[in-house]
Amino acid sequence: MKKTFLFLPILLLLVCPVISGQNCSSHPLGEYCEMTDNKPHDSAEVWDKLKQPVQFSWGSTDIRYHKLNVPKMNKQSFWQTKGWKGERVNAQAVIWTNKEIEAPTIRVSDLRSGSAIIPSSAVSLNFVRYVMTDELSKDGTTGCGHRPDPAQWDSSLVADILDILPLPVIEARSTRPVWMNVWIPQDARPGKYKGTLTLSGKNIPDMSLPFEILVLNRTLPAPSDWVFHLDLWQHPYSVARYYEVPLWSEAHFDAMRPIMKRLADAGQKIITTTIMHKPWNGQTYDHFDSMIFRMKKLDGNWEYDYTIFDKWVEFMMYEIGIDKQINCYTLIPWALSFDYYDQATNRIQFVEAKPGDDAYDDYWGSFLKDFAKHLRQKGWFDKTTITMDERGLEAMTAAIKVIRDAEPAFKISSAGYYHEEIQHELYELCLAYGHSFPEDVREERREAGKISTVYTCCSEPYPNTFTFSPPAEAAWIGWHTMAGDYDGYLRWAYNSWTKDPLRDTRFHTWAAGDCYLVYPGNRSSIRFERLIEGIQDFEKIRILKEEFQRKGNQSQLQKLNQIVSQFMPDNFSKEHTEKMIKEARVLLNSY
Amino acid sequence: MKKTFLFLPILLLLVCPVISGQNCSSHPLGEYCEMTDNKPHDSAEVWDKLKQPVQFSWGSTDIRYHKLNVPKMNKQSFWQTKGWKGERVNAQAVIWTNKEIEAPTIRVSDLRSGSAIIPSSAVSLNFVRYVMTDELSKDGTTGCGHRPDPAQWDSSLVADILDILPLPVIEARSTRPVWMNVWIPQDARPGKYKGTLTLSGKNIPDMSLPFEILVLNRTLPAPSDWVFHLDLWQHPYSVARYYEVPLWSEAHFDAMRPIMKRLADAGQKIITTTIMHKPWNGQTYDHFDSMIFRMKKLDGNWEYDYTIFDKWVEFMMYEIGIDKQINCYTLIPWALSFDYYDQATNRIQFVEAKPGDDAYDDYWGSFLKDFAKHLRQKGWFDKTTITMDERGLEAMTAAIKVIRDAEPAFKISSAGYYHEEIQHELYELCLAYGHSFPEDVREERREAGKISTVYTCCSEPYPNTFTFSPPAEAAWIGWHTMAGDYDGYLRWAYNSWTKDPLRDTRFHTWAAGDCYLVYPGNRSSIRFERLIEGIQDFEKIRILKEEFQRKGNQSQLQKLNQIVSQFMPDNFSKEHTEKMIKEARVLLNSY
Repeated sequence: MKKTFLFLPILLLLVCPVISGQNCSSHPLGEYCEMTDNKPHDSAEVWDKLKQPVQFSWGSTDIRYHKLNVPKMNKQSFWQTKGWKGERVNAQAVIWTNKEIEAPTIRVSDLRSGSAIIPSSAVSLNFVRYVMTDELSKDGTTGCGHRPDPAQWDSSLVADILDILPLPVIEARSTRPVWMNVWIPQDARPGKYKGTLTLSGKNIPDMSLPFEILVLNRTLPAPSDWVFHLDLWQHPYSVARYYEVPLWSEAHFDAMRPIMKRLADAGQKIITTTIMHKPWNGQTYDHFDSMIFRMKKLDGNWEYDYTIFDKWVEFMMYEIGIDKQINCYTLIPWALSFDYYDQATNRIQFVEAKPGDDAYDDYWGSFLKDFAKHLRQKGWFDKTTITMDERGLEAMTAAIKVIRDAEPAFKISSAGYYHEEIQHELYELCLAYGHSFPEDVREERREAGKISTVYTCCSEPYPNTFTFSPPAEAAWIGWHTMAGDYDGYLRWAYNSWTKDPLRDTRFHTWAAGDCYLVYPGNRSSIRFERLIEGIQDFEKIRILKEEFQRKGNQSQLQKLNQIVSQFMPDNFSKEHTEKMIKEARVLLNSY
Repeated sequence: MKKTFLFLPILLLLVCPVISGQNCSSHPLGEYCEMTDNKPHDSAEVWDKLKQPVQFSWGSTDIRYHKLNVPKMNKQSFWQTKGWKGERVNAQAVIWTNKEIEAPTIRVSDLRSGSAIIPSSAVSLNFVRYVMTDELSKDGTTGCGHRPDPAQWDSSLVADILDILPLPVIEARSTRPVWMNVWIPQDARPGKYKGTLTLSGKNIPDMSLPFEILVLNRTLPAPSDWVFHLDLWQHPYSVARYYEVPLWSEAHFDAMRPIMKRLADAGQKIITTTIMHKPWNGQTYDHFDSMIFRMKKLDGNWEYDYTIFDKWVEFMMYEIGIDKQINCYTLIPWALSFDYYDQATNRIQFVEAKPGDDAYDDYWGSFLKDFAKHLRQKGWFDKTTITMDERGLEAMTAAIKVIRDAEPAFKISSAGYYHEEIQHELYELCLAYGHSFPEDVREERREAGKISTVYTCCSEPYPNTFTFSPPAEAAWIGWHTMAGDYDGYLRWAYNSWTKDPLRDTRFHTWAAGDCYLVYPGNRSSIRFERLIEGIQDFEKIRILKEEFQRKGNQSQLQKLNQIVSQFMPDNFSKEHTEKMIKEARVLLNSY
């Protein structure tokens, strides 16, 4: 959805059992209802004190506005920002009202700077939707750990989803934010562009908020050219389940196309593939399955079929444009049990074996040889890595031996702790947040063309991208990636959707929102947009630093390095995140 | 085992925890222990009244001698019988003793008739072993019906297994029958052959029982040439489980070879194959699985692999010599759920569909076309039938349509009730015991070369082959097959072994012994040997009738027909079975 909202056909409204005719069925893709907010909130008396029944103001992208409270803010009728050509800039406006607004719509004008125009089609507008979240562990130190009983956790509705559809109504005595994203065209003429955001409704007069974007004379490359090595794991199985389409059917690819395109637009570099059944022991709501068919023939030989693997990789590479790297999970799964179709029993069987065992060697050694051959035929061998994550040194060492025995040239990647003994074997090594490469190793890896990245998961209370995390923490990650001298960032879940992901981000094993950054129906989130901001910041810093180095501008280089260097774990402060980023960006946009 | 027993190595004895050092481990193939007989039995006082401590006498093959009772019998020191060349004749001797016999062995002399010899190698000798059985339903009308709690059924040890190994001891105050089977060579010179059966033991003097076989000048063909259409379903999966060998491995075929050879020697005509997962919804202890691999490709097409099917059929046909017919189970399984490997999900999936549904048509139609092609390539098409059992008319009609649409020439077979509407479609039609073909239909089927047979299962309280059934009932079946003008007989279970089949024939769904006629370790049973007797009788009657017809000997034909015609359900009497067979055989052996 771009500028204007369509009115929904009456037909859709008829099936909606709950609030305002919204769709409360399972697996909604279009219109849907939110869960009920049961927390104490502003009373009717508080709401009725509004001087005007409908309020419309610019807000802050750092804030998740409460649905049923009157926002504590000074109304702002004007917003301005700066941006590079090719950059996406975000703003948030807020509507709050003590009367129901019928058929609300938001529209934006073209942005004009003299005769230059940034067309309104470059602007995305989304009503922000509310979704159920929970909280960190009771001691506030982590988002990990099982949480089977939701009643034991403080749950609340938070603003996160950027909806793609209009709302039938904005309810009386509620707040409804609007997210605005302007993707400044790369060929925009630098200058000050003015535009207007307008709220309309059937029963209200139009209300408008002007804004201004100063387009600087610097260019951010297209996301595919970003250097930032972004790896958010894709979960195709989750999409098939939620969209209720057959796996790997045309309908499945149709469903994935916009979702994966959105990921490519964030600068994703890696295709997530699974080469065995349940690499993570089925820990997500939908388990990952094997994209490769293995048959153990009656004579003991193995036969492989790569139809699914090829179809998925070709889709991601040639249709979506994510084409730098193929990561294959995994040689050391979280349960050491390996599936195959057994010709004798005509059934799926499992080998239980650990690296070092003969059975492990037979299962993987034979496969890796065949796989290498297949990858070379497809021209993908050099892009492919055999991937392991969060496994111990002993198992890693044994698995690496099996890989090397089968095919010495295979690239290997791993996410986890740093092990001096094997780091040289790893083409990509992704360290847990808070862990650093020894400086000489970092340099050596860079020179060898190896990738050195960082990841966060449920472990970190902050910075994180839980649905209750302050939005600025998502942007902080890009700055930290630069500060820690990492090549990029990994997060284990782009779209490992939970049972009812559009309404409830809670999951029985980790803090809410851990499992996905985007929502079904190709809906982005505040978290995801802010994460992209940080990645853009990384790219802008990189470009500036290269320029300063090229021009020998040491003072600017030092100034920039100094401000970047603050974005390290020891320096992280929940209270200062937003301010740190704001101030750093002032410098970044001053060149 | 033929004439002599080997003494067991000491080593084996060391591992035996129970009686007399016998092996009470699970899955025994060699020596093993019997279950304990907890029924009231003759006391020590009764046993101690024996005039001689060790008794050895000819007994009757109609009797399952009690293990812990003194046999109620007049001692018989001589046994004689008549037989055709090529016929197998059975005798039973009985040992009972009030002192332990150490290392007992049984041996037989060569049988001599003047200068002619039937070598002792033509004689099988087996100690009869005791196995746990139960009883008919409480009202005595059936062997069907669930029996989950063994405690609610009257269980007892019965003599049935013909062991292949010597016993370490015969316990004090116990009875131990010996089964003798003489397979008269087809080239034996007619005449009266004399032989001696001898019991030896470490602590007893040799005891001998003479016997005499009058070999008549008539020849029974080799079993492969018998006309009797015998169909005892084979269960290869059960063998693999019990023998603890990988399915379809060389070890598996090695295990099956003597078991299936024994079946061929009974005149078996049909190879049992399963073309889908669990044709009978896994009702046996081991479920039957699909011998055919089906993959649903991503493009919706089907791919098939016949490796297992071919290997099994080739084994049975070319190694074992059972080569008349291949029955394929089934198009209408007992649960309408059909397995296939789904390329998209990389998992086994099931189609739930009934005959008449599009999904059923897609699953089977495509397969049957491909299967027909494959069978023609193998030269097996004309021997193969698509088989359904105990299904209703409506489903049968719909399934037949699917078969005919795919391949009009496919042979179809069915076991169940008679349906006028579809009988003409059925190459083989096997009717439940007590059901008859209309006379004109029987004649029409005969002329068309179609097979018309009869079956028994758990339904019949008698005649049957439960482990508690009187042995003569097994022989009665062959006579009934002739009396009812059937081409042969079907029983659903040659070797659907239960959990611990050598010790316990009970099963949670049917009366004990319903699931198998032979025992692991290639052990025959009293039931199986008596069943073969009846089949031999059928063949002998057939040959005599053909001769009488050829020679126009109406009076003998009538006499024979008259005695045969008594073997019909209405005439069956538990009390007279043995006498009926004895008297009929006197006639049969009078020509």
